[in-house]
Amino acid sequence: MISVTIIGSGNVGFHLTRSFLNTKGVKLEQLFSRNKKDLEFWDNQVLTTHLYEELQPTDITIIAVSDDSIAEVSKHIKNDFVVHTSGGKSMNELQNLGRKGVFYPLQSFSRQKKVDFSTVPFCLEAEKSADLEILKKLSKAIGSESYQINSDQRKYLHVAAVFVNNFSNHMFSNAKEICDKNNIPFEVLLPLIKETAMKIEQMNPSEAQTGPAIRRDENTLKKHLNLLSGRQKELYKLITSSIQDNG
Amino acid sequence: MISVTIIGSGNVGFHLTRSFLNTKGVKLEQLFSRNKKDLEFWDNQVLTTHLYEELQPTDITIIAVSDDSIAEVSKHIKNDFVVHTSGGKSMNELQNLGRKGVFYPLQSFSRQKKVDFSTVPFCLEAEKSADLEILKKLSKAIGSESYQINSDQRKYLHVAAVFVNNFSNHMFSNAKEICDKNNIPFEVLLPLIKETAMKIEQMNPSEAQTGPAIRRDENTLKKHLNLLSGRQKELYKLITSSIQDNG
Repeated sequence: MISVTIIGSGNVGFHLTRSFLNTKGVKLEQLFSRNKKDLEFWDNQVLTTHLYEELQPTDITIIAVSDDSIAEVSKHIKNDFVVHTSGGKSMNELQNLGRKGVFYPLQSFSRQKKVDFSTVPFCLEAEKSADLEILKKLSKAIGSESYQINSDQRKYLHVAAVFVNNFSNHMFSNAKEICDKNNIPFEVLLPLIKETAMKIEQMNPSEAQTGPAIRRDENTLKKHLNLLSGRQKELYKLITSSIQDNG
Repeated sequence: MISVTIIGSGNVGFHLTRSFLNTKGVKLEQLFSRNKKDLEFWDNQVLTTHLYEELQPTDITIIAVSDDSIAEVSKHIKNDFVVHTSGGKSMNELQNLGRKGVFYPLQSFSRQKKVDFSTVPFCLEAEKSADLEILKKLSKAIGSESYQINSDQRKYLHVAAVFVNNFSNHMFSNAKEICDKNNIPFEVLLPLIKETAMKIEQMNPSEAQTGPAIRRDENTLKKHLNLLSGRQKELYKLITSSIQDNG
């Protein structure tokens, strides 16, 4: 049995709480939040507190707060083994005196949508190999794959995640703007978006690259640029030349 | 019963042939290709030819050839109602003397992967409303949704498709490069990619936008730019400022 404390009631803390409460082999001892309203939601399901002094010792204390609060919050934790859940901060951001680690779920969470942790990979790091094993066990308990990723790799992984998530989503936004302007229902594009994402489960993205840029189809490229203006034209130009650089 | 002729044995022609051969209410009369080897594959399943003179009259003749060949190929077709399958060309690219239309499947096809047409929307256009009805019937027969999209709209839709497919895929490529350089298994990112695509089935991409750019998290943005160079740094800068413009 792994005993766990969660610090923070944001999206990650919320979904981890729900998951741990339903996981055999994991005992969620306490949930800490400075936001008392968030804690009320969990009354009767788990011991909650908003006072650091009330924290009980557990095997793992998971700090799931905003990046900029990790250092400050971790100073108050007396427990032995403390991890944060951030992709953007190194392990040494933690200021607790005991052992340190990282338990970073690489997924985009929203409060409303139930998380299936079997589809969420965890990036793990710990100072001691025994601690790494505990984190592996914890991710396995909730059905997640885990990967050992050190702080330096995680910095780059975070940038890569920005490309696949934030930047792709911005491509979808631009497409929706273009559709809206021309009275085209955006839903026409949803199957293509899905297929684009699914395709790279079977081949490398560089092999999956199609379209006028990689074909160097100058006619189509010119026609497209003529249809665009401002910001979208700049994006089209730069991404096209980047695709061609790559090829 | 709708009788159909397919001109062209590329990806679109191939998958339409397979689908029509298995569809009730559709009779695939003939498959035309200049490539005799491609035709051999279909021997005994459908009447094939590489000679325009041998084409039989059918309700719909579908030209599924490369954009630049549509005009030339269509000149040779004597049949009444001729459509092309291109997102990039207007209906008037067709040079046949009879009625014209467009039957554009908005999806990315590869030869190896079997196509489930129930997930492929068709963009339809025709000079006559009766012809539009035939095309609707045909897409319905193979289980596809259809949308009426005129040539002017289709030009823009094609650009939008470049954004969601080619450009998103290029974001995935960049992420893979970053992962490879840092010995991070790219597969860690696959669940996030899938979630990014699925999320916009439930909300607008502008609502789904997260990350350091839209949060104007200058610390993270600076850190990320320091990790990147060359082409990737330029992409990161421009897409970030484009996201912030949008917000």
